[in-house]
Amino acid sequence: MHTFPERDCLVSLSLTKRVPPNTSIVMETMAHETAIPSFSKNAMILDSPEPPSVWKEVTGTVKNALIPRGDKPFSPLSFFLSCIKGLFPVLQWGRSYNLKSFRSDFMAGLTLASLGIPQSIGYANLAKLDPQYGLYTSVVPPLIYAVMGSSREIAIGPVAVVSLLLSSMIQNIVDPTADPDTYLKLVFTVTFLTGIFQASFGLLRLGFLVDLLSHAAIVGFMAGAAIVIGLQQLKGLLGLGHFTNNTDVISVIEAVSSAVHQPWHSGNFLIGCSFLILILATRFIARRNKKYFWLSAIAPLLSVILSTLIVFITKADKHGVKIIQHVHGGLNPSSAKQIQLTQPYLAECAKIAIVCAVIALTEAIAVGRSFASVRGYRLDGNKEMMAMGFMNVAGSLSSCYVATGSFSRSAVNFSAGCKTAVSNIVMAATVFLALQLFTRLLYYTPVAILASIILSALPGLIDFKEAMSIWKVDKMDFVICLGAFLGVLFGSVEIGLSIAIIISFAKIIIRAIRPRMEVLGRIEGTEIFCSIRQFPMAIQTQSVLVIRMDSSFLCFVNANFIRERIIRWVTEARDTIIEKAGDKLESVIIDMSNVTNIDTSGLSALEEIHKELVFLNLQMAVANPSWTVIHKMKVAGVTASIGGEWIFLTVADAIQACLSSKKENV
Amino acid sequence: MHTFPERDCLVSLSLTKRVPPNTSIVMETMAHETAIPSFSKNAMILDSPEPPSVWKEVTGTVKNALIPRGDKPFSPLSFFLSCIKGLFPVLQWGRSYNLKSFRSDFMAGLTLASLGIPQSIGYANLAKLDPQYGLYTSVVPPLIYAVMGSSREIAIGPVAVVSLLLSSMIQNIVDPTADPDTYLKLVFTVTFLTGIFQASFGLLRLGFLVDLLSHAAIVGFMAGAAIVIGLQQLKGLLGLGHFTNNTDVISVIEAVSSAVHQPWHSGNFLIGCSFLILILATRFIARRNKKYFWLSAIAPLLSVILSTLIVFITKADKHGVKIIQHVHGGLNPSSAKQIQLTQPYLAECAKIAIVCAVIALTEAIAVGRSFASVRGYRLDGNKEMMAMGFMNVAGSLSSCYVATGSFSRSAVNFSAGCKTAVSNIVMAATVFLALQLFTRLLYYTPVAILASIILSALPGLIDFKEAMSIWKVDKMDFVICLGAFLGVLFGSVEIGLSIAIIISFAKIIIRAIRPRMEVLGRIEGTEIFCSIRQFPMAIQTQSVLVIRMDSSFLCFVNANFIRERIIRWVTEARDTIIEKAGDKLESVIIDMSNVTNIDTSGLSALEEIHKELVFLNLQMAVANPSWTVIHKMKVAGVTASIGGEWIFLTVADAIQACLSSKKENV
Repeated sequence: MHTFPERDCLVSLSLTKRVPPNTSIVMETMAHETAIPSFSKNAMILDSPEPPSVWKEVTGTVKNALIPRGDKPFSPLSFFLSCIKGLFPVLQWGRSYNLKSFRSDFMAGLTLASLGIPQSIGYANLAKLDPQYGLYTSVVPPLIYAVMGSSREIAIGPVAVVSLLLSSMIQNIVDPTADPDTYLKLVFTVTFLTGIFQASFGLLRLGFLVDLLSHAAIVGFMAGAAIVIGLQQLKGLLGLGHFTNNTDVISVIEAVSSAVHQPWHSGNFLIGCSFLILILATRFIARRNKKYFWLSAIAPLLSVILSTLIVFITKADKHGVKIIQHVHGGLNPSSAKQIQLTQPYLAECAKIAIVCAVIALTEAIAVGRSFASVRGYRLDGNKEMMAMGFMNVAGSLSSCYVATGSFSRSAVNFSAGCKTAVSNIVMAATVFLALQLFTRLLYYTPVAILASIILSALPGLIDFKEAMSIWKVDKMDFVICLGAFLGVLFGSVEIGLSIAIIISFAKIIIRAIRPRMEVLGRIEGTEIFCSIRQFPMAIQTQSVLVIRMDSSFLCFVNANFIRERIIRWVTEARDTIIEKAGDKLESVIIDMSNVTNIDTSGLSALEEIHKELVFLNLQMAVANPSWTVIHKMKVAGVTASIGGEWIFLTVADAIQACLSSKKENV
Repeated sequence: MHTFPERDCLVSLSLTKRVPPNTSIVMETMAHETAIPSFSKNAMILDSPEPPSVWKEVTGTVKNALIPRGDKPFSPLSFFLSCIKGLFPVLQWGRSYNLKSFRSDFMAGLTLASLGIPQSIGYANLAKLDPQYGLYTSVVPPLIYAVMGSSREIAIGPVAVVSLLLSSMIQNIVDPTADPDTYLKLVFTVTFLTGIFQASFGLLRLGFLVDLLSHAAIVGFMAGAAIVIGLQQLKGLLGLGHFTNNTDVISVIEAVSSAVHQPWHSGNFLIGCSFLILILATRFIARRNKKYFWLSAIAPLLSVILSTLIVFITKADKHGVKIIQHVHGGLNPSSAKQIQLTQPYLAECAKIAIVCAVIALTEAIAVGRSFASVRGYRLDGNKEMMAMGFMNVAGSLSSCYVATGSFSRSAVNFSAGCKTAVSNIVMAATVFLALQLFTRLLYYTPVAILASIILSALPGLIDFKEAMSIWKVDKMDFVICLGAFLGVLFGSVEIGLSIAIIISFAKIIIRAIRPRMEVLGRIEGTEIFCSIRQFPMAIQTQSVLVIRMDSSFLCFVNANFIRERIIRWVTEARDTIIEKAGDKLESVIIDMSNVTNIDTSGLSALEEIHKELVFLNLQMAVANPSWTVIHKMKVAGVTASIGGEWIFLTVADAIQACLSSKKENV
């Protein structure tokens, strides 16, 4: 056995003052029994070094975040170079890029474009914008992401949920049909602010903001949003002229049922439904046989072409089938002048932008992480945020609305065998070509087909299996999931999100207010002490009650609760032991190994517990207080009032000391 | 050594399926070394019983709260009787009450009244009410508390902070000088609602609501309130006619400096200051010599009598000294009809009432607990809340405003040797007599004397020593204290409270978002694993990295942070070990003993950690997951993907298994 000679000397020196006369015998008794004399362990805990101060921790975190790690000395040039490298990952993977990878990326990019073009038009429709804005959004942001992003599989462009968010929140300020110009301006302003927020989250290392939406909340929110989006498509599918601006289920059902009494054209519904069935059928085939995944990828484009041809040939637009009509082609026009960073809308736009920023990042990072984990590399959340931010700022200046990584298109990109972000460049180039050459061909495209393309993408957002597994694993998480779902469905997107966030944080606070506490017993033949509820075979020592606080922060919200429960348990245990065994409860050991921090309320609770135990004529011992706790106990004088010799490293040592002191007293 | 024969059989049965072929040798190796074979300990943790469900915990808490504990069978009659006994503690202590106790209580009650009468008039002035309302408030509430309360030392009546709260918040709705009738109605309505809130807190066992204000927040808030109250007294002390209605320092200084240019009468200031010095001098004497404590107790009454006589004799009121003038005497009139539970003020009143309810309870329970702890008995917070609630409801029906336990008067009550709450009854009777007989004598009492009585009570509210000790012990708590102090001083009472509560909860949330994590090492010669930062003598096993999560709830806010940090530490440790020792990192042990709960995000983080460690070619083991955690891990299938044989009861077992598997691989 290795011993610490100098340390032991130091320890006995420092202890001579502290130990009362009658405990020296106790220590000798114990010294025979354990490998290291327990008084030296006791001193170890009392003499442990001071923990880093709050100030040091904060500056440490900031330093860690800003200055790159490594053994090399810090130089401005290398720092600048590493920053540039970090900002543009293309500089790293670009050097080893070869033709073979490009062939894969080219095919993946083309497949992506065939899915992306119809989806972009559909999502623009959902965002209450003209079709070309969806296409614009599939050009500039993917290009920026390709040079700044670190994911290889993410496909960038407009997505359903963010489109819904934008339209449902901005139309509370301005009616898109009554004042489309102001609406458009607000969309660009929100996009610009979204980019600014995202970039600053990345810059300030606020990656945790994305974590504020728990997994359960996202599952519920996505499912609710999918249903809301689906209901919105009824307008296009039924070819309705008037429809509600509200997104909740009740308003939509009212709108649809009132529309039933108006004349409507079955042609819209027929086209929409038949192509929806076609798209779903190809997806079914693709899922059965992975070889045919491209079938499901090009089905939307095929549907657009076929349905446009059908309408053109049958002249169905003369018989009530609604068509897209004119689509602006050409280069993305500049929209820098349309961004309005002035009142009266700035505050509202900032509010919308922060919601969009968090939701867009959550979706993109979830997509990116899941594919990165499949391919076996790691994504840096903060860098991703910077890339997304710059891409949306650039987008807002070139007539794009908020873009992010799309679940469905990233999956297609992955399946099509993309190797790098070059597939995004190919996709953007294809969309750009389409904007230059083919926008006129979209004139006769029926609106119903857009609805069916959006509808076909929705089942992927509803993860019923995951919701069931959340129910099985964690009931409280399911409540969060259900809250988000019902909130989106019957309230609005913001209400659903707020409900989910409030329940999530309430859960953390409630756990802090009402922590678990456990009575411990010894696993026989060992020095291991476990909860007697979790391990029914654990045996309690008759005259000693061991209580563990299962709270990591003994603070104002739980100090009184813990104090009262300890006293109640102690009095109950005292009565039971006297009744049953005729023996007497002599000591109470508080196992503080789980308590990593304490505040002044917690310290005074500890002192009160000690006082009340003294009133009950019981000895109190504390086992394994952590670093910060023992430091604060010493500063606040709690150690002195409990007695330094009654603070132990382990529960076993504490029990031994308690039993020995009992023997003496007898 | 005691073994568990049936359990071992069960264990080996259940393990035969789970254990891969090459680990059976490992287990045999270990069986020689530890007292209980570690595979049986391993099984203990996997087979631990299911923890109580959330539903069971909630119903258990409710049951515990509503139905009295005890072995006796439940019967409606005994339940009713125990409820009555619980509601009226007087039924218990009243039976053993004797003449000797009464003699002590009588003297204490008289002393209390001599301090209480001038204070009540002063506080009524602070609450912008006529003097008699302060006296009324010292009659009915103490009587109710005497039969329902369980503290023996608390002195009930109006207090400074609640009076300030009432006037500063209600005058935002109605100006007390312009419309005194409505103001009075609102005061009674707020008092009524305060009582209702307090009683329902007690009934619903919401005792923790009082804990939401941390000790540090209260220290800061009280000090801020004391200074604000002191500044308000400048009006009376300087005899100013016009004064600001705002309570913040800046408004008050502006008001005073603008008043300097107006003519003012030095008589007020002279009387106020000289008697303030007198009162403070008596207190100084009393503190030096405990025998003379009654001197400081009757000094305020003496000052009132003397100053009234002086004014009466010198006719100073003709020369600008402001006097109280008419004080309504007689029985407390009914105010039931003045309570207005209708709009437009109801919502505002309810908001004010909830703040008053919490602040009043916080003060009373703090006072009650500190004296109970001196005398060695325990106060039931919930019962105290019920008593306070009923007392304020009754008060609001009989022209009283919010009453609570007062710091200064309770101390006098205690020093005067009170034995039971009978001293409150004596005090109430004395005040009642004064109301009947002596109100006319108060006609010439100068207003400045009320200011000096209030001012003399303020130093007790400013606990500079405590603030210093908070600074020493916990910097974050000091920030809370300072926030409350500055918020009250420069904003308003509500702003100060909100700042304190927001910082307090932010602290809990931040600790949850950024938990500590520790690398563990073994204390040589033992099976004890400790943080190598806290115990620098702890020694790490070369090829094994042990990481402990110091968070009690592995959940959405910290799962990603913990995952990323573990992976970073692991890669760093791998590089260092290879560089320095030529050895290789083989295994990573996650010590989960501090994690008492986990949610779905936490579970998927665990799974991802496992995946990433597999990518890095490292073995992952989990040590000591708690009850709920192991249950959820099993249900979610995380146990299966990590491998049941890699989950251990202790870190020591896990290390042994890791080392043995390494030997085999070699």
